[in-house]
Amino acid sequence: MASDTPKAKPARRPRAETPKGFRDYFGAEVTERKAMLDRIAEVYHRYGFDPLETSAVETVEALGKFLPDVDRPNEGVFAWQDEDADWLALRYDLTAPLARVAAQYRNELPSPYRRYAMGPVWRNEKPGPGRFRQFYQCDADTVGSASVAADAEICAMLADALEVVGIPRGDYVVRVNNRKVLNGVMESIGLTEDDAETREAVLRTIDKFDKVGREGVLQLLTNGRLDASGAFIKGVGLSNEQAEIVHLFLVSKGEDGNQSLELLSQLIGSSAAGQEGIEELETIASLLAAQGYGPDRIVIDPSVVRGLGYYTGPVFEAELTFEILDEKGRKRQFGSVAGGGRYDGLVERFTGQKVPATGVSIGVDRLLAALRAKGRLEAGSAGPVVVTVMDRDRMADYMAMVSDLRNAGIRAEVYLGNPKNFGNQLKYADKRGSPIAVIQGGNEAEKGVVILKDLILGAKIAQSATLEEWKDRPAQMEVPRADLVAAVRRMLAQ
Amino acid sequence: MASDTPKAKPARRPRAETPKGFRDYFGAEVTERKAMLDRIAEVYHRYGFDPLETSAVETVEALGKFLPDVDRPNEGVFAWQDEDADWLALRYDLTAPLARVAAQYRNELPSPYRRYAMGPVWRNEKPGPGRFRQFYQCDADTVGSASVAADAEICAMLADALEVVGIPRGDYVVRVNNRKVLNGVMESIGLTEDDAETREAVLRTIDKFDKVGREGVLQLLTNGRLDASGAFIKGVGLSNEQAEIVHLFLVSKGEDGNQSLELLSQLIGSSAAGQEGIEELETIASLLAAQGYGPDRIVIDPSVVRGLGYYTGPVFEAELTFEILDEKGRKRQFGSVAGGGRYDGLVERFTGQKVPATGVSIGVDRLLAALRAKGRLEAGSAGPVVVTVMDRDRMADYMAMVSDLRNAGIRAEVYLGNPKNFGNQLKYADKRGSPIAVIQGGNEAEKGVVILKDLILGAKIAQSATLEEWKDRPAQMEVPRADLVAAVRRMLAQ
Repeated sequence: MASDTPKAKPARRPRAETPKGFRDYFGAEVTERKAMLDRIAEVYHRYGFDPLETSAVETVEALGKFLPDVDRPNEGVFAWQDEDADWLALRYDLTAPLARVAAQYRNELPSPYRRYAMGPVWRNEKPGPGRFRQFYQCDADTVGSASVAADAEICAMLADALEVVGIPRGDYVVRVNNRKVLNGVMESIGLTEDDAETREAVLRTIDKFDKVGREGVLQLLTNGRLDASGAFIKGVGLSNEQAEIVHLFLVSKGEDGNQSLELLSQLIGSSAAGQEGIEELETIASLLAAQGYGPDRIVIDPSVVRGLGYYTGPVFEAELTFEILDEKGRKRQFGSVAGGGRYDGLVERFTGQKVPATGVSIGVDRLLAALRAKGRLEAGSAGPVVVTVMDRDRMADYMAMVSDLRNAGIRAEVYLGNPKNFGNQLKYADKRGSPIAVIQGGNEAEKGVVILKDLILGAKIAQSATLEEWKDRPAQMEVPRADLVAAVRRMLAQ
Repeated sequence: MASDTPKAKPARRPRAETPKGFRDYFGAEVTERKAMLDRIAEVYHRYGFDPLETSAVETVEALGKFLPDVDRPNEGVFAWQDEDADWLALRYDLTAPLARVAAQYRNELPSPYRRYAMGPVWRNEKPGPGRFRQFYQCDADTVGSASVAADAEICAMLADALEVVGIPRGDYVVRVNNRKVLNGVMESIGLTEDDAETREAVLRTIDKFDKVGREGVLQLLTNGRLDASGAFIKGVGLSNEQAEIVHLFLVSKGEDGNQSLELLSQLIGSSAAGQEGIEELETIASLLAAQGYGPDRIVIDPSVVRGLGYYTGPVFEAELTFEILDEKGRKRQFGSVAGGGRYDGLVERFTGQKVPATGVSIGVDRLLAALRAKGRLEAGSAGPVVVTVMDRDRMADYMAMVSDLRNAGIRAEVYLGNPKNFGNQLKYADKRGSPIAVIQGGNEAEKGVVILKDLILGAKIAQSATLEEWKDRPAQMEVPRADLVAAVRRMLAQ
């Protein structure tokens, strides 16, 4: 068949879509997060932390080649080449930019430098349910202090932050461990600093303890195991005796902090690093006790590992201990919402000098989800009073009404769509979550009155289908135009 | 010479630098901007606008190929290809994402949809002094209302926003014009809609009126002119008569709004579009008058053009009228800090249907600079009380002190650097802008007291070099440990 002459196709319209893995946040989603972050910022501020806002874009060189929690080089970031052929990328966390800032401004910044940062970060990873390529982090770090008092302070501040956003004492616990103790355990089973790869493998393995349990961890530390899908996971290659000791470390949480420390002491043998780690934990516990942070809020817990390779000392994790129902309707603990620890190597990349640092990152979306699950989010912002338009020639009158309401501090708007169909105006008010519709047709205007329609009451009546119980409360009333503000205020207060 | 065997070079350290054209914001720079945006958000909220936060990343397809104020295709954005070879880019403004959202969620969103958005945008342009590649915008738009009441509302809200952040009435004016009137003038001089290119050229030319004045504009509209550098700028090619009429349009601002409208009426001849534009301006003026926004705040001003091609109706601009000194010490008006207008074509790109929209964008950095110039920024956040460390073994005591202060709502921190050199601790407190240093050595601990050092007074004494005038106020005092909080509070209140 002879081909037709090609016809000019109409230009395809652009798709109105967020890129894969990105999303939009509307109304209450924005204000709820903002309210939570504002409260956390107040706590950080009271602790002497200053805000820092770096740009979203960094040089790839400054960001470094590794995301904190993946072991793949130069993957996982959104990057492009600028006109000078330098590679730029969106930040993947708030710690890497802090390290860059600490190096760049090392002569101007106070030392120690306490800073907090809140903002989006970007990961070029496979999106999944609830897993987005842009999400918020909320970090606080102290750069330039080698003292474990800095770690203790971060733990106390984390506890305060959780309480101030609405997680009551008893519903959370900050667990503290020390990477040095684990290093001591490694030494005691014969893994020296030269066995760095094996040590890393042990670290990654015991980070899975929560998921695979005692048997699983022992298998993974020794000869390997079949996972749920039937695939064989290679083991680290420790002996059974070595693996048992590592497992003992994970479960050496005692009745209280002192007992935990005693159990740990027995595992580290003569390791100096291990001893130092235990002493640091003791100091942290006593500093916190002096400020009234007891084990009901902050506990020493050897099962806290934190997979990140870059931690060098104390590590901590905030866990929410209340139960929620998971997607299958089973009860489970809510789990971790924040974590952090001491990292002494990040600034060194730039300057060659070790700069001690410690910090915490709060998982903003996780914490918001927890507050939502517990019903602790402030009710979404109230919808506006909607002034309807009965007569489009009197728009000036309607705008004067919203103006009066706003000047009295009441959220209000005039209907700005096509006013022809009054039903659409009420539908609009409903969609806006409006508490009150104000109506003034020609008759009312002549009489100098307005009608107030109580939409919340209206919705309740519609639901219960019995007007009887509301009979003392009028769903609609006529008031003089001059009393508009006062009458709306009374109705809103009901 | 035989070449040496190559030696392994030590790996070059990464540079600790922000990418070219980007910057960091520290401390008060962050909190001052946040405080300003929070106040503006309150106004927007009261007007019934809901927050929207889209992601920083959009598909290039959705963003469209033109920045709003450059005429180059697909330049000026930071873009890259994702793994599916789709092009992604950082948003260059907040309007393009709104158009995408309005199309994507057109069945879910209320209509009209009032939304505000605040956040960074990115431009891949040549950076210059004060010109960065990431900066904040603060927008409010109404999508889905064809009524000029929506435009009037935006103008009133803009005036309110300026006042609430600290620009008093009289120091600003919102100027309003209408693109339709200009189109009417074009028609009256014989430029029809088919002369789109010439019309665009006229638009771009008269947008320079502020800079080049009457003679300049007349030359540019006709045969062209030599610019300051001696280069010849080609003219639009109008006749002298045509150019004179366009210039009359620019200067037809009368004594009051009515006179301006009368002058404009004479210029548009029999143009229907022009007549519609004048009627819209009349309506806007009367709606605003009904709400008490007189010409001391919002005026009709034909010289407002707004270069953007996409405006289709009313356009507006907020100008600060007070004088500042420019970089050369000359007085000049501060100028424009916000602008916007009606654009009815943006959503159509996606859906094929015209959706009327109007909105405003506040230049966040410009407005902040104005507030700074007028001394209207809230004083930068106060530095913390610094508890010094005289005896590192008693860190628990010092941390208990900061804990007491914080629990009383006082910003406080313990010195976390190496405490050996006490002078360094006071230098640190100075760098932090600390009002008070708390000191407790062994003697004081035994006596159960602390020393409070008034650092603000100390700085004043150091400045004036005469202790005499401060003699009634001790720069340092000893108080019982139990009175720490009360004594600090008294000293802070002085």
